[in-house]
Amino acid sequence: MVSTQAGAASHSHVDSSAGGQEHDYSLTAPMWSGTAAAAASSDESFLVALLEAEVALAAAMAEQGAIPAAHVDTIRRAADPSNFDIRSIALRARGGGNPVIPLLADLRAEVRRLDPDAVSSVHKSATSQDIVDTALMLIAAHTVSIIGADLHATADGLAALADDHRQTVMAARTLTQQSVPTTFGLKAAGWLQGSTTAARRLEDAASRLPAQLGGASGTLAATVELLDPQAADAVVEQYAAELGLQAPALPWHTRRAPVTELGDALAAVTDALGKIAVDVTLLCRTEIAELGEPSGDGRGGSSAMPQKQNPVLSVLISAAARKAPAMAAELHRSALAVDERPDGAWHTEWATLQELLRLAGGCAALAAELTDGLQVHDTKMKANLQLTGGLVLSERLMLKLAPVLGKEAVQHLVTRAGTGDDLRALLADALDGVEGYDVDELLDPAAYLGCADTFIDRALAAYQEQFTDRSHHGQ
Amino acid sequence: MVSTQAGAASHSHVDSSAGGQEHDYSLTAPMWSGTAAAAASSDESFLVALLEAEVALAAAMAEQGAIPAAHVDTIRRAADPSNFDIRSIALRARGGGNPVIPLLADLRAEVRRLDPDAVSSVHKSATSQDIVDTALMLIAAHTVSIIGADLHATADGLAALADDHRQTVMAARTLTQQSVPTTFGLKAAGWLQGSTTAARRLEDAASRLPAQLGGASGTLAATVELLDPQAADAVVEQYAAELGLQAPALPWHTRRAPVTELGDALAAVTDALGKIAVDVTLLCRTEIAELGEPSGDGRGGSSAMPQKQNPVLSVLISAAARKAPAMAAELHRSALAVDERPDGAWHTEWATLQELLRLAGGCAALAAELTDGLQVHDTKMKANLQLTGGLVLSERLMLKLAPVLGKEAVQHLVTRAGTGDDLRALLADALDGVEGYDVDELLDPAAYLGCADTFIDRALAAYQEQFTDRSHHGQ
Amino acid sequence: MVSTQAGAASHSHVDSSAGGQEHDYSLTAPMWSGTAAAAASSDESFLVALLEAEVALAAAMAEQGAIPAAHVDTIRRAADPSNFDIRSIALRARGGGNPVIPLLADLRAEVRRLDPDAVSSVHKSATSQDIVDTALMLIAAHTVSIIGADLHATADGLAALADDHRQTVMAARTLTQQSVPTTFGLKAAGWLQGSTTAARRLEDAASRLPAQLGGASGTLAATVELLDPQAADAVVEQYAAELGLQAPALPWHTRRAPVTELGDALAAVTDALGKIAVDVTLLCRTEIAELGEPSGDGRGGSSAMPQKQNPVLSVLISAAARKAPAMAAELHRSALAVDERPDGAWHTEWATLQELLRLAGGCAALAAELTDGLQVHDTKMKANLQLTGGLVLSERLMLKLAPVLGKEAVQHLVTRAGTGDDLRALLADALDGVEGYDVDELLDPAAYLGCADTFIDRALAAYQEQFTDRSHHGQ
Amino acid sequence: MVSTQAGAASHSHVDSSAGGQEHDYSLTAPMWSGTAAAAASSDESFLVALLEAEVALAAAMAEQGAIPAAHVDTIRRAADPSNFDIRSIALRARGGGNPVIPLLADLRAEVRRLDPDAVSSVHKSATSQDIVDTALMLIAAHTVSIIGADLHATADGLAALADDHRQTVMAARTLTQQSVPTTFGLKAAGWLQGSTTAARRLEDAASRLPAQLGGASGTLAATVELLDPQAADAVVEQYAAELGLQAPALPWHTRRAPVTELGDALAAVTDALGKIAVDVTLLCRTEIAELGEPSGDGRGGSSAMPQKQNPVLSVLISAAARKAPAMAAELHRSALAVDERPDGAWHTEWATLQELLRLAGGCAALAAELTDGLQVHDTKMKANLQLTGGLVLSERLMLKLAPVLGKEAVQHLVTRAGTGDDLRALLADALDGVEGYDVDELLDPAAYLGCADTFIDRALAAYQEQFTDRSHHGQ
Repeated sequence: MVSTQAGAASHSHVDSSAGGQEHDYSLTAPMWSGTAAAAASSDESFLVALLEAEVALAAAMAEQGAIPAAHVDTIRRAADPSNFDIRSIALRARGGGNPVIPLLADLRAEVRRLDPDAVSSVHKSATSQDIVDTALMLIAAHTVSIIGADLHATADGLAALADDHRQTVMAARTLTQQSVPTTFGLKAAGWLQGSTTAARRLEDAASRLPAQLGGASGTLAATVELLDPQAADAVVEQYAAELGLQAPALPWHTRRAPVTELGDALAAVTDALGKIAVDVTLLCRTEIAELGEPSGDGRGGSSAMPQKQNPVLSVLISAAARKAPAMAAELHRSALAVDERPDGAWHTEWATLQELLRLAGGCAALAAELTDGLQVHDTKMKANLQLTGGLVLSERLMLKLAPVLGKEAVQHLVTRAGTGDDLRALLADALDGVEGYDVDELLDPAAYLGCADTFIDRALAAYQEQFTDRSHHGQ
Repeated sequence: MVSTQAGAASHSHVDSSAGGQEHDYSLTAPMWSGTAAAAASSDESFLVALLEAEVALAAAMAEQGAIPAAHVDTIRRAADPSNFDIRSIALRARGGGNPVIPLLADLRAEVRRLDPDAVSSVHKSATSQDIVDTALMLIAAHTVSIIGADLHATADGLAALADDHRQTVMAARTLTQQSVPTTFGLKAAGWLQGSTTAARRLEDAASRLPAQLGGASGTLAATVELLDPQAADAVVEQYAAELGLQAPALPWHTRRAPVTELGDALAAVTDALGKIAVDVTLLCRTEIAELGEPSGDGRGGSSAMPQKQNPVLSVLISAAARKAPAMAAELHRSALAVDERPDGAWHTEWATLQELLRLAGGCAALAAELTDGLQVHDTKMKANLQLTGGLVLSERLMLKLAPVLGKEAVQHLVTRAGTGDDLRALLADALDGVEGYDVDELLDPAAYLGCADTFIDRALAAYQEQFTDRSHHGQ
Repeated sequence: MVSTQAGAASHSHVDSSAGGQEHDYSLTAPMWSGTAAAAASSDESFLVALLEAEVALAAAMAEQGAIPAAHVDTIRRAADPSNFDIRSIALRARGGGNPVIPLLADLRAEVRRLDPDAVSSVHKSATSQDIVDTALMLIAAHTVSIIGADLHATADGLAALADDHRQTVMAARTLTQQSVPTTFGLKAAGWLQGSTTAARRLEDAASRLPAQLGGASGTLAATVELLDPQAADAVVEQYAAELGLQAPALPWHTRRAPVTELGDALAAVTDALGKIAVDVTLLCRTEIAELGEPSGDGRGGSSAMPQKQNPVLSVLISAAARKAPAMAAELHRSALAVDERPDGAWHTEWATLQELLRLAGGCAALAAELTDGLQVHDTKMKANLQLTGGLVLSERLMLKLAPVLGKEAVQHLVTRAGTGDDLRALLADALDGVEGYDVDELLDPAAYLGCADTFIDRALAAYQEQFTDRSHHGQ
Repeated sequence: MVSTQAGAASHSHVDSSAGGQEHDYSLTAPMWSGTAAAAASSDESFLVALLEAEVALAAAMAEQGAIPAAHVDTIRRAADPSNFDIRSIALRARGGGNPVIPLLADLRAEVRRLDPDAVSSVHKSATSQDIVDTALMLIAAHTVSIIGADLHATADGLAALADDHRQTVMAARTLTQQSVPTTFGLKAAGWLQGSTTAARRLEDAASRLPAQLGGASGTLAATVELLDPQAADAVVEQYAAELGLQAPALPWHTRRAPVTELGDALAAVTDALGKIAVDVTLLCRTEIAELGEPSGDGRGGSSAMPQKQNPVLSVLISAAARKAPAMAAELHRSALAVDERPDGAWHTEWATLQELLRLAGGCAALAAELTDGLQVHDTKMKANLQLTGGLVLSERLMLKLAPVLGKEAVQHLVTRAGTGDDLRALLADALDGVEGYDVDELLDPAAYLGCADTFIDRALAAYQEQFTDRSHHGQ
């Protein structure tokens, strides 16, 4: 006996006609609006990818003889994206919980128009998730290649900054306080090393993106029913090859490591670029003013307050970088996917991955622009280094002078300087008669830079290896 | 001296002309696609809200004499949404990092066309964040009222289920195992209580949504320069009243409690509805089959596998409910907003709040549909209660029989039943000659329901108080 | 037929004897180590709370006649925390997945030693989750009252700062750039308002913390079996009253709003204090130097680098505030709790809530210390306001001078100043012969503070209402 | 002029004497309590690692001649962990915000006792973060090797299950509904593949764990001052080698990829094991009952409700797996680390990484136990496959019979069966007179398993490659 309830209060219904009001135009997402990466991961690109997956499936099935070869071309023609109303598909996706169901209805109708016999060859032996997962990997692959190019451009900019500013001395800062001198070249080299590492990790993850094809429950039973196990396996390989993706060892409907590995790599990209951004944002502050963002396009300016040069690029990068980790974490949570195909975890993934691709893509596009025109105010860097009256070299003074003056004497001296006394005068006084010590040299920040140059060389070498030596690798 | 770097590798640029490819159609978001809540929180609605805020500001400023009254109507006419190209604004938002800057350029151009004198009255003494924050609160208010209506409808459905199924006995389950009997009415009452509490919390948060107006840095200095402190304050009150929002005690540019409180309340809604969804999803499983989702629209069916009735509504609800907490947490992170207006934290908020509104809106619309037609298979509930051969009443047997048979004897008896022996026979045997015990009554699940009815009454009373007694409260 | 697998590779086993190596001493948590809040939410306090819940249950059951009154005292004596080996209980908790199971074994053994008859009165008709949930609410209540006191102390400090620094002019900063003047008093007032709001929200949440008592599956069936529905209900009320908690309308084993509401309120506290911390950290920077942290205890100093005064208090507060939102979100995720008692979601909650209590407690203790001795460098604030050569008043100049000089002329003037020309001289020149304008007054930051004082008054009033007028309310 | 505020309300202070109440005993963490991984990542192990880093630094510095060789042994003797009061260090860590500062005070005191001359050789030219980061990598390396062993054991168990259950037919389930047949062997193979992939990723991450040594701000300036750039570099290499870690290309104080890569790999481990757990938890449900957890130690049993066999191991695994992604995400957020050493992001990392190591360690230990004794109820699997009356083979029927009966006829037939008619009878009737079709064969789930065996072979091959062929690789 089944009781069905009726007559509850009226509530808001899905109104298929109201569609127009709901489009998004990235009005709330200036961090990625208008980027090539956003276009490559848009709903429209996703629709195209879904159709590409259906066509590739047909081609692979035909190659193994599971469907007539003639049907492939019919399906390919029917699968022209201009035949499909994306908004209508989006609304009807609610019925079965995914967009492939209404997409197939429309695709089959179109195929039927061209050749009724070919209808049964559409989506043969596949499940919706095969198509959705494959399409996600396709848009991921395209978007990642764009991100890779922008990381390359970013790294080019950083490499030049690192090399050009080996002599540009500035204050290092720890826990917000000036500590010892460093160079802007080394700072840029650290950013470069981060970008290089992130680019490598992203490239690795991208090189493993798999197609998905398992049929209703990951056994390929329907394909095997039509063909045989070896041929079914060949279908998977061909399908993947057709799309430029990897053939998976096993269907991964509920083994989501490919998705999480990609997501983690994207978060690693936003981390690396976000680190640059938080540094730039800080160093552009009115009181620090050691860096300036590229000023083209009236970017960041304010006519009412001309003293303001808002570091908009780095603000937007850091905004994107703040959001990305939550997206990557959501993908991990979706990996707790029960059964052979899950009951909600999977549905959470799509928009999350899409958003993560865009955030990383936005960061990379902005970072390329940022590092391409970053203004380095070396005079201000030098001036800021004087703010502590030489105490930014106190570590050095201790190392150099403790052997001759005694540790307590040096400590006493820097402590006095810390309360306002003139360090240079104190030093001159203390070293009066001591040979081999030059106060100017002692207080020269450029003389206390440690391995800065070696580290810059290393970052440049890693950059060369990643980007230059193998730039033919499809970046 | 400033060095600017040039000549880095070419990279992906923002292509303002490529716009079209980037629109979103909620293709990856069947959990909220096409809902009224999604429309109310769309980019288009946000644009309308931004314009409403500008008009309200003009009206309030005119009322206090800061600008000529005649300018208000000019600005209102210019602010007709159809005058604005949302996509263009979105793309140009990258320049200054927020959409108000290009919006104002277009609004001023439009005003200039109507009355050049009125241009200087546009956005008078406000800052971009005043308008963005206010617009976010406006779309939040609209969306929340839709969510409130769907929560009301959901609660109506649940209240009927709770009341109708007081006698529908089923197994309670703890840590996946059947434990003791309960009723479906009580389960529905628990869902109802959760929905009622969430609705109240959302209503509370919504009742406090503030307008934002602080000027460049939260002092209202420009407004005071034009008027005086009291009048400046009156502008804020009028501006808020005009928009149906609260006037804030202080500007809250970097005091984001209004946003986090709203976000938390929205997450509380998705929690409450997600709890229903995970229960329904489970109880629809082939092997349990105690519930069925409404079957209208061929929803969830599969022609290839007719045995499948995928619980699509609850799957989508739980997908949305999984994602929402990360969004609410992101809002909390954005509350660590430095300075008088922050450098990235704020920019992260907009799309996050928008997405959270949609997720909650989607959950509520789906839940209203779900609870309106939920199928309750009471026969299957009864059958499942028999799966343990009566052991689902072992707690009761211990309580009732230990006094007469001794604790060890009862323990022995249920342990034997646990290994396969017939509990009814064992009981009959053990109670042979003991007066006042009826094996049928002892093993009757309906006799061991505790306070189920009382709890249902309480949930219904809370529901009445929240929804019925005060349904005039603007739900 | 059941097949059990055997003979897999050896793996790491739980070694009950190795216990010692695993204790935590908060070595990695200086943000809360050693605070009263950490003690109130420690494992030891949790054990005490578990025992208190068992005793309160016995008392309430005895009051209604479900167990002999004499047993209560026996149970109370047995429940002396010193009788229990917390580490052993923790290790044995793995067996059944929660600590109440081994705790009960030990409690029953202890009761048996005192009075064998009383053993059956222990934990009568309750389930483990009743005790765990209740104990969590108990330690939450205790910890929250400590946090409340520290919020009060923090607010006292902030109120004094707000009131004392009404005339302390400083630069407001937006998107990292100096925008217009403000006062440190207003900045402190914003912090105060945030703290007041958070304190109120925490107090509200705390006032609703419920006890848990539902029996095996939330029906109270066992209690009703022993008594009757009304009496069972009375047991819940008395149990809650005994513990200073609220009696819930229904058991909330899988309706977790009480936990999420508390978690959200705790995150609101860390948000409000974290906002203070990020501002202080920034304003302590070497180049800004407008604030200094209390210097007691050699805190933050460095003997090797005496120029460094690390703002350790605010660094630790912001570290805690960064972590808290993820904890609050985890509690929301745990609210998707299936069945009558869940299969993992619940187990995730305990340590998460514990950590969140400590993070909020740590923030509050540190904030009280920070605001109690914060050093305000008003001279430096004034000096920094000069960095833009008066352009920090450009918004004002436009408002004041456009009417007399024309908008373009003023714009031209500030633009020139923006490229290095002397603004004062430019102004003197431009206003030569114009009556009623005093360049000194025009460029006086103190003359452009808008409603700062009004806003300070409001924040002080809200503070008074929350803390002073009702300080008898159990803060 | 500096104003310091005094006289605020009394507040909770850190009470160094109250220490005892704050120890943790993992009472709220049964998912990892008592595991070897928890011990390896405990506060005590962290203290030992901090001391090991100091000793290794001294050894490396002496080797290059920066300090006298004789001091190394003195420092090693002083660095005996038993000389240190961990709780006291934890409490004093609040002063400077990290535990190395008080640790060094105690270490220097101890060295002074042994040889006053050696005091200046302690921690020579290093910064606190060098030691903390290195110690975190050390405990990570140790914990990861334990996790690796447990993953190996888990994989062994899964490999045996996959191979043993190639013929154990069961229902595959998608979106909660039975879809088509599969085998338990394939399910176990999917789990195995997930575990293998996660083990490989963790091993990769672990192989790259770097030591940290950069001095005050990442330039090694102090070391270079004492030696020269090449020798400074050699110190880093030797220091790393001494500790079994990698020498970094550059200091990574604010380039946190090593930490995030490790964190992501740990989350990948909990994902893979969590996937197993959610499947097991589900398949142990009373109504499904296809699996049972190992029953040793009375685990999961209930004396009051003997019908319950709570799947405690998988419940605890899934509880840990739920929490882990938030921890990994927090590490990503900490990667937005400003300056040369950051102001809060870093401090958030320590306890987060520690907790993540424990969660992954707990998952792995529990999974090894779970897979070692998992009970497979093949009879129940077979019985459940009959629940749909053969419709679980409807996809196959369509493929096989559409060519002979026509698509509509088959559709009609399965639809009738879906409403309750006997499928076998319907088929017999429909195929009456059609040659070559055997109803029994058509409805035999074992005949519709697709590539299940091939997939099992692949998972076993990947397992062999990861674990067996290279088990000498330090797992």
